[in-house]
Amino acid sequence: MIDNDNLKNGDGNLSAILVIFGGTGDLTHRKLMPALYNLVLDGLLPEQFSIVSVGRRDKTEEEYRSEIHEAIQKHSRNKVDDKLWEKLNKMIHYYRFDFTNLEGFTALNEYLDRLDETAHTGGNRVFYLAVAPEYFETIVQGLQQSNMGKKKDAWSRLIIEKPFGKDLKTARQLNNKLLEVFDESSIYRIDHYLGKEMIQNIMVLRFCNSIFESIWNNKFIDNIQISLTEKLGVGTRGGYYEHSGAMRDMLQNHIMQILSMVAMEPPVNLKTDSIRTEKQKVIEAIEEITPEFLRDNVVFGQYGKGVIDGTPVVGYREEENVPANSNTETFVALKLHINNFRWAGTPFYIRTGKRMGTKSAEIVVQFKDLPNILYFKDRNIQEPNLLVLRIQPSVGVFFQFNTKNFSTHNDIVATKMDTSYESPTQGNTPEAYERLIYDILRGDATLFSRWDEVEAAWSVADQIIKYREQKKVNFPNYDSGSMGPVRAFELLAKDGRKWWNV
Amino acid sequence: MIDNDNLKNGDGNLSAILVIFGGTGDLTHRKLMPALYNLVLDGLLPEQFSIVSVGRRDKTEEEYRSEIHEAIQKHSRNKVDDKLWEKLNKMIHYYRFDFTNLEGFTALNEYLDRLDETAHTGGNRVFYLAVAPEYFETIVQGLQQSNMGKKKDAWSRLIIEKPFGKDLKTARQLNNKLLEVFDESSIYRIDHYLGKEMIQNIMVLRFCNSIFESIWNNKFIDNIQISLTEKLGVGTRGGYYEHSGAMRDMLQNHIMQILSMVAMEPPVNLKTDSIRTEKQKVIEAIEEITPEFLRDNVVFGQYGKGVIDGTPVVGYREEENVPANSNTETFVALKLHINNFRWAGTPFYIRTGKRMGTKSAEIVVQFKDLPNILYFKDRNIQEPNLLVLRIQPSVGVFFQFNTKNFSTHNDIVATKMDTSYESPTQGNTPEAYERLIYDILRGDATLFSRWDEVEAAWSVADQIIKYREQKKVNFPNYDSGSMGPVRAFELLAKDGRKWWNV
Repeated sequence: MIDNDNLKNGDGNLSAILVIFGGTGDLTHRKLMPALYNLVLDGLLPEQFSIVSVGRRDKTEEEYRSEIHEAIQKHSRNKVDDKLWEKLNKMIHYYRFDFTNLEGFTALNEYLDRLDETAHTGGNRVFYLAVAPEYFETIVQGLQQSNMGKKKDAWSRLIIEKPFGKDLKTARQLNNKLLEVFDESSIYRIDHYLGKEMIQNIMVLRFCNSIFESIWNNKFIDNIQISLTEKLGVGTRGGYYEHSGAMRDMLQNHIMQILSMVAMEPPVNLKTDSIRTEKQKVIEAIEEITPEFLRDNVVFGQYGKGVIDGTPVVGYREEENVPANSNTETFVALKLHINNFRWAGTPFYIRTGKRMGTKSAEIVVQFKDLPNILYFKDRNIQEPNLLVLRIQPSVGVFFQFNTKNFSTHNDIVATKMDTSYESPTQGNTPEAYERLIYDILRGDATLFSRWDEVEAAWSVADQIIKYREQKKVNFPNYDSGSMGPVRAFELLAKDGRKWWNV
Repeated sequence: MIDNDNLKNGDGNLSAILVIFGGTGDLTHRKLMPALYNLVLDGLLPEQFSIVSVGRRDKTEEEYRSEIHEAIQKHSRNKVDDKLWEKLNKMIHYYRFDFTNLEGFTALNEYLDRLDETAHTGGNRVFYLAVAPEYFETIVQGLQQSNMGKKKDAWSRLIIEKPFGKDLKTARQLNNKLLEVFDESSIYRIDHYLGKEMIQNIMVLRFCNSIFESIWNNKFIDNIQISLTEKLGVGTRGGYYEHSGAMRDMLQNHIMQILSMVAMEPPVNLKTDSIRTEKQKVIEAIEEITPEFLRDNVVFGQYGKGVIDGTPVVGYREEENVPANSNTETFVALKLHINNFRWAGTPFYIRTGKRMGTKSAEIVVQFKDLPNILYFKDRNIQEPNLLVLRIQPSVGVFFQFNTKNFSTHNDIVATKMDTSYESPTQGNTPEAYERLIYDILRGDATLFSRWDEVEAAWSVADQIIKYREQKKVNFPNYDSGSMGPVRAFELLAKDGRKWWNV
């Protein structure tokens, strides 16, 4: 983040070969290459830099480069400049190779070594696994066999996209495999949510403002809501989603990350490990997941048909590649406590879902009510103070407080302050990837997840996922375009609270 | 204010005769009559209501009414409606009478009694002293002689404009005189500042928002600044101002009132006396005014010539009716502590002046710095959290906090939230007077000063004024268009602080 202590490449030398497994895939076209173009645009890529895209398909380097040129033009926010593209163009290489063929890795290694000579990249490697998760172990196996993991005179880093395992057990398996080949500190588990400016801003807001820092605890905060809702359905990704569900797709990673940044203690410094340690402690402090917890505090949902923005849409079970009797959850709501001195007694309400009425990612901090005296004397309901961190689509800070109603002279009204603006650079964008790739090259792992964080998140998520798999819920239980199942509203209503949509 | 418990006229009967001493004066033309017109406009004046303007000059009722019509057209924010004016017009009477002639009061009383009969005003009286302060006692004396003070079957109220005395002694004298004739609860000491919406909003902001209430004390607040600055000079009022100065004109009344509302404990309820009691306690808790205090914490100023908005202006000593060697202060700055559990250790900085660079009335709450660790590690200076209550010319709430700089990815910037807007209805306007007159008719004294508040404010101001009168300051010591004398800046600089102009 802002601290430069986190940089491993203290000499500022970012020279390396970036090897992208899945070079012809969607992620590479839509995110990685546009992000690399932005890095060139911002002058952040060194001259001595090469990109080797690994793909199964037969195509010439020229063909591949021209594909990428098109992709960048299509997905880049800025008009593509010919000179800058030429700079990137020269860095890009296409290496045809089926990575399920383990023998091929030795040849790849030789190819990369030769490229080092001509491109002066000094042996540094970044391996980006932009492939389906079932290939993660195979590729790492291949890298191991050809000794491309830990290196003596150069660095070698691995970038791995979610999902990191499909439960605690498989995540551990995968992690053990990775650790045979790479150091923990060389493994960059990407959670693109952490690339969002507003997520990084959580820590700045908390630790750079005495007014917030002073009241960021259970004495002043009534509850905190983390709400990540999408209007989109699963689209063409039904096959993937069927094995994922909202728990694996959103909760185990993005939401746990956000929760830990919202609730963490101030770290001793801004070093990567200091921050990760505090984040991990939050997940560790989540209350025990008992049968009673699962019964009372967890709500699953699956969308039925409905209307989104005036257009009728099908239910989840009617989506492509989804069985007609699927029990996969497309929505989950949770109430949980973090049992430490700072948060005991202040519940966290979490919800995430697809095909909901609004597209929004936000954190709502609701402050405690005042006694019902003075101006509130004859009122049962107070409009509480709310601080909302808007992550997307709009980005910024919203604050609601009470003032005198200047027009009537005689009443109290909730007044809203808002710094939010619609940001074109947010979300799962090339810009977020630009930031993340740049951090990897610099060796700053702050915005990536350390294994013990991932492990702690899985320990929580696992039990909830198991519960869902055993439980018979009457799916679908919410209409597309609604804000989720009735029980998700009841979850707060029984505590005398409600979800805020501000 | 919002609580109806404060109303003395529980039956809602506002019928009365309003007697204005000084009916041909400036205040009546510019504020009172336009305010009364607004009350008609808003349907707040009863049918049974009369206005008797007392003046020395010889003019017919018709002449007087037509003068007032003109005045309202000139000073009213709204276009004057003929029908509404006709309603008001019928209520207005002109009574020619030199009130220094005490005998005349008996005749006035008889006139009012006769008017009661025709206007069905039931004997209720409001006496508005819209005259120079030297006449206050005379008029009250006259009212006493003709038994127009305390009444048995009707109410009788006295409205008195500032200045309430010219020091503690004369204020006490005046007050004793008033109390011979009126009950304390029937004396309405007008401070038009209290008619401003934002002043009334101070209490709402503090007591309707848990986030503010929680941190409104010396643990979280570094200092509070109350700044009332004007661009205007004394204009044609040099004669009055020469005997007043900034201390009597602004500090003893407006600023003490604001200070007490900012610093008061929550009252037990919203009854007038509960609020006044808490306000009085604040003034009572102001630190002792010792010689050291006066030497170190008080700065006087008098404007010299300079430039305001591009136009050269003369110094105070060159103003009309001001002696060339005048030592009257047109600026005062103070640092003071309120020695109670809530505020001990948190200084209040106060300044007010004429002919300054900006016209503004605001309260700035500066929150404490955080430790210089984490994001502040390599910084000596933090941009603190600021909460600013803007009273005029813009009205609203401003909040400054730190966020990540989204454009550079790598820095912290102060972000500003602002609900303020330029309000045409603020200030010493007919609208403020409308509010105040309406409160008087209803019998709500919350926005007026109780004697013990005035007395406490005088005890503080008196000592400072005496000090100024004895002290030789090298006047003039600030240029018109500047922000006051150098020593006013040093007052904060020696504490490592500064005046905020946000």
